[in-house]
Amino acid sequence: MIDRLINKIIKLQNPTCVGLDTDFEYLPVEMKEGVKNFSRASEMIFEFNKNIIDAVADIVPAVKVQAAYYEKYGYSGMKAFYKTLSYAHKKGLMVIADGKRNDIGSTAKCYSAAYLGRTQIGERLLKAFPSDMLTVNGYLGADGIQAFAEDIKIYKKTIFVLVKTSNPSSSDLQDIRIWNGQFIYEKMGALVEEWGKESRGRYGYSEIGAVVGATHPEEISRLRMQMPHTFFLIPGYGAQGGTAEDIRSCFLRRGLGGIVNSSRGIICAYKKPQYEGMGYAEAARAACIDMQKDLSAAIGKMGR
Amino acid sequence: MIDRLINKIIKLQNPTCVGLDTDFEYLPVEMKEGVKNFSRASEMIFEFNKNIIDAVADIVPAVKVQAAYYEKYGYSGMKAFYKTLSYAHKKGLMVIADGKRNDIGSTAKCYSAAYLGRTQIGERLLKAFPSDMLTVNGYLGADGIQAFAEDIKIYKKTIFVLVKTSNPSSSDLQDIRIWNGQFIYEKMGALVEEWGKESRGRYGYSEIGAVVGATHPEEISRLRMQMPHTFFLIPGYGAQGGTAEDIRSCFLRRGLGGIVNSSRGIICAYKKPQYEGMGYAEAARAACIDMQKDLSAAIGKMGR
Repeated sequence: MIDRLINKIIKLQNPTCVGLDTDFEYLPVEMKEGVKNFSRASEMIFEFNKNIIDAVADIVPAVKVQAAYYEKYGYSGMKAFYKTLSYAHKKGLMVIADGKRNDIGSTAKCYSAAYLGRTQIGERLLKAFPSDMLTVNGYLGADGIQAFAEDIKIYKKTIFVLVKTSNPSSSDLQDIRIWNGQFIYEKMGALVEEWGKESRGRYGYSEIGAVVGATHPEEISRLRMQMPHTFFLIPGYGAQGGTAEDIRSCFLRRGLGGIVNSSRGIICAYKKPQYEGMGYAEAARAACIDMQKDLSAAIGKMGR
Repeated sequence: MIDRLINKIIKLQNPTCVGLDTDFEYLPVEMKEGVKNFSRASEMIFEFNKNIIDAVADIVPAVKVQAAYYEKYGYSGMKAFYKTLSYAHKKGLMVIADGKRNDIGSTAKCYSAAYLGRTQIGERLLKAFPSDMLTVNGYLGADGIQAFAEDIKIYKKTIFVLVKTSNPSSSDLQDIRIWNGQFIYEKMGALVEEWGKESRGRYGYSEIGAVVGATHPEEISRLRMQMPHTFFLIPGYGAQGGTAEDIRSCFLRRGLGGIVNSSRGIICAYKKPQYEGMGYAEAARAACIDMQKDLSAAIGKMGR
């Protein structure tokens, strides 16, 4: 699955991921009018996502759909989450479910079934929230990660494990030094590189990727050296402050190595002065084109 | 909210939490017959939970509902999750949503709205998945935790942060020593104790609790000393191998300090030889009574 993502990035010369962190509040006023319950709000959120997907599907390789923004609208929100994942697949996009899920082995298997695998009901194997990739928190260690391994193999899926997150307080735990002088995030990175060693694809990257925030350029550079076989999912570009220059060092080998997410920067582009007069979908497309230009100017030709 | 939980534990002399990790597979054969889709399976899961709740509501203080087991049945499963939380509240039980959620501040606020707070739609403030308490992963540090602080205050809620988990591989990261000789789980414990210092209640415990696995008696004892103001949610009793003796050291002060979860040991009790001939709800009640006896023999009088 990581090979499929890399192929798409090369084909489109675009390592941009559109983050569908669609808060109901982000919608244009006319879509919010008269909406009073979760069911209707969730329909509107899906409608918004659908139009964004239609506008960007031919120029970006993937979308990342943030579960938290759907859970806050209850089970109706989870229906909009499901419909968004399904619609993005239908339009040929790769789909990253951003849930940062984690638990002990037997429970992590349920999360794996929910997002990457199948759930058995009688003789039937059904899909709950069909995704190509899922973000995962690795604090519980190998058995919490290996629970996903079987589905990764059978269904050709990928997970991204949190290594160094984009938020200001990521330093509280992640930047503490352990006994051998490594930072905790480096140790997590080393575990991820190790966990992935059985599943490397044709570009040399494994099915166990890492989340590394765009807001930490030094750490990206350090981790890229230490994790040569790990593909990075890079949040924090744009609204959170990360720039193309900050993440350049991720893309050392043939201009590959990561995919960069922007959420508000794209789905709320219609509120920015530079996209004035455009509808939200048109503005999202324009913002994707601008982001592609910005990234490719920093990275150079991908797959060279 | 932690005070309300402790009051209930003292009143019932029972620090047992019933884990509703209800896999469709756990249901009696007659409830599974003819079920072919998520919608019907989820209805059956709720029916099962409802009967368990009815059977135990007067003898246990709380239930813990594991999100993963509902997500695997898609948005229908999430409806069963919602109905289970609501029904448990209605029967007077305290409700712990076990989601181990985590993200950067703005996204963690969505999780907080979803489980502990409210979601705004127009002028209305609605509840998505109403819970008293939520489990949270602290790998992202303070801002990922503080996102919950406002709702904790306004709505009188509690969170439990993963410190030392019950699974075998918890040692992979959590048992690594940092520069000052502490283990990572101890450092996480120290952060939790610090994060909670503004919200201590009448028993001296804060609204920011910790998850500490029953399978690690030595670590429980060490953490109890280092985290005197942190209430523990203790999974891993029963099916995972933890015993009453293993967790005894948690309950140093007045027989208080923690709540012990059992999931399969209670909801699947009807499959065990010692409860033969009982229905699943009756067996669950019997297993709760046995667990109460086992725990109180080890702990002594609670609230003494």
